Amino acid sequence: MTMADFKNLEYIDDKLKFINQVKLPLAEEYIITDNYARIAEAIERLEIRGAPAIGVSAAYALAFSVKNKLDNFEAEFEKAYERLHRTRPTAVNLFWALNQIKEVFYSAPEKGSSPYLSLIERAREIHRADSEKCDMIGKKGIEIFKKKSVVITHCNTGALATAGDGTAFNVIRHGFKKGLVEFVYADETRPLNQGSRLTAFELEKAGIPFAINSDSTAGYLMQQGKIDIAVTGADRIALNGDSANKIGTYSLAALCKMHNIPFYIAAPTTTIDTGCEDGSRIKIELRDKKEINRFGSHLITKEEYDVYSPAFDVTPAEFITGIITEKGLHLPPYKF
Amino acid sequence: MTMADFKNLEYIDDKLKFINQVKLPLAEEYIITDNYARIAEAIERLEIRGAPAIGVSAAYALAFSVKNKLDNFEAEFEKAYERLHRTRPTAVNLFWALNQIKEVFYSAPEKGSSPYLSLIERAREIHRADSEKCDMIGKKGIEIFKKKSVVITHCNTGALATAGDGTAFNVIRHGFKKGLVEFVYADETRPLNQGSRLTAFELEKAGIPFAINSDSTAGYLMQQGKIDIAVTGADRIALNGDSANKIGTYSLAALCKMHNIPFYIAAPTTTIDTGCEDGSRIKIELRDKKEINRFGSHLITKEEYDVYSPAFDVTPAEFITGIITEKGLHLPPYKF
Repeated sequence: MTMADFKNLEYIDDKLKFINQVKLPLAEEYIITDNYARIAEAIERLEIRGAPAIGVSAAYALAFSVKNKLDNFEAEFEKAYERLHRTRPTAVNLFWALNQIKEVFYSAPEKGSSPYLSLIERAREIHRADSEKCDMIGKKGIEIFKKKSVVITHCNTGALATAGDGTAFNVIRHGFKKGLVEFVYADETRPLNQGSRLTAFELEKAGIPFAINSDSTAGYLMQQGKIDIAVTGADRIALNGDSANKIGTYSLAALCKMHNIPFYIAAPTTTIDTGCEDGSRIKIELRDKKEINRFGSHLITKEEYDVYSPAFDVTPAEFITGIITEKGLHLPPYKF
Repeated sequence: MTMADFKNLEYIDDKLKFINQVKLPLAEEYIITDNYARIAEAIERLEIRGAPAIGVSAAYALAFSVKNKLDNFEAEFEKAYERLHRTRPTAVNLFWALNQIKEVFYSAPEKGSSPYLSLIERAREIHRADSEKCDMIGKKGIEIFKKKSVVITHCNTGALATAGDGTAFNVIRHGFKKGLVEFVYADETRPLNQGSRLTAFELEKAGIPFAINSDSTAGYLMQQGKIDIAVTGADRIALNGDSANKIGTYSLAALCKMHNIPFYIAAPTTTIDTGCEDGSRIKIELRDKKEINRFGSHLITKEEYDVYSPAFDVTPAEFITGIITEKGLHLPPYKF
């Protein structure tokens, strides 16, 4: 059983129900559909975002493509596969999930009969597996709280970032339910404000007392002794424990180190890149200036001003107290 | 002679010319007026902002109140004094400057003749004195650059923040003119984005190559070895050197300390609070949640979400390599 107070993705009445993340937190709008093209659109428009959520919803969508077909399954299936494949060019989970469904499609036992039931079953399995990993991370992660704690986090790592109840956020939520978390400071997380928009929404839904702070307030909070522990997610973890995550995570971890505050990372083992020895091999994507010079459609400063806007930074293993995966808490030196 | 590429405040053709800061940097609009009520309005609407700039423009405005009067000076003067006095409730420079003009008014030698020329002369003196302090800070500050440097700064400290060419920004500008500054990273400075709006505009005007970065990118820049030196302003400096400045300055200075990057503060000696032994005595103002939850009129997240938004933080003297005033570079232990 999941602890979620809302669901990002839900399979219900043989359809996919998803929350429209573009409108959050100002409106809480759900879309219920079994139209694969509508789900493809949702992925393109970022109504569905977060790598695991994209993978799971694409898997459902591909299954739906043959739901009400009586024959000629393959043409429709291949059309849907192509459509979904081009929604987001770099989402590894997307391609993996689509190929999982494709594998089932081409190994369907009876030619001529509808493959829908096998496909939807596989989509649900992918969904369940992601959700279970989140549950394990949440349950196993609570050992990081040695006392009733005030927590700081960065970016968004809850249900909205996964197809289950989240990673770092789920650790915080389980800690709260056990009485081990009393308050959360959420970095607003410039430039896209995932903290003030999405994490704040998740905290509200979970009933956890919180405040949003500008990212540069984190150090001052620590200086005043207001922070007991920090937990964030990760986008990619090298074999030595160096972890790439949303820009600002390095500053947060460095400030924690300086103030003797434990800093943890929570992520599924699928985030560990076994081909990557250490963080120096991780290439960092630079984002467009419009994310700094605008807020949405609202112009903040001159469009032509140059910006330096890396999407991620790399926190060295020496700043990380421990890494929580679905297998439990890993302590340095890391051996995954 | 000033080095400014634009002027925030200028006394020209017996009027005050000022840039409308509310519209910056998207529009560069100047207002020329000798109407004291228009200047009072400008201060209220933040078209004129920054403590020294408010003081200087209020001094001009009060002088203008009797400019074209032939008699009955006192009634008009007192009306203008009251009007200007209530524009910004906590601006110390405002009250000081208004009282300077008032002192001249009531010590005017000939009763019945217009006091205007004495008043405008005093306003110009106040203006000149502020501008000269900026010049001295800029000239004396360049000794902090031991080599051609990449600089990071926080918030806004140039012409737009003073009635001259600025404090920390003027150090950077003089360094650039001497070939000692090659590039500037400007923290956007959440929540009010003085960096991405105002400092970026000043950097553009001064022809200094720059990029805007989100505040939480500063640590990652340092980790990569991209920053040689940091300089910021200060709002209040305690006798031991502890310095209050825009929120985020503490995080920046702490990260500099950790990365062995020199961190300097530049401010006039009027910023030193001789009644304040150390930073623990400095009270920090908490700002309204709407500055975090909105950008201007644009809603980012739910209005009711709690925020923790201190306006300033206090950087301990141990993190400050040196403090530049109009008297020169002060090194620790500080004896002002």
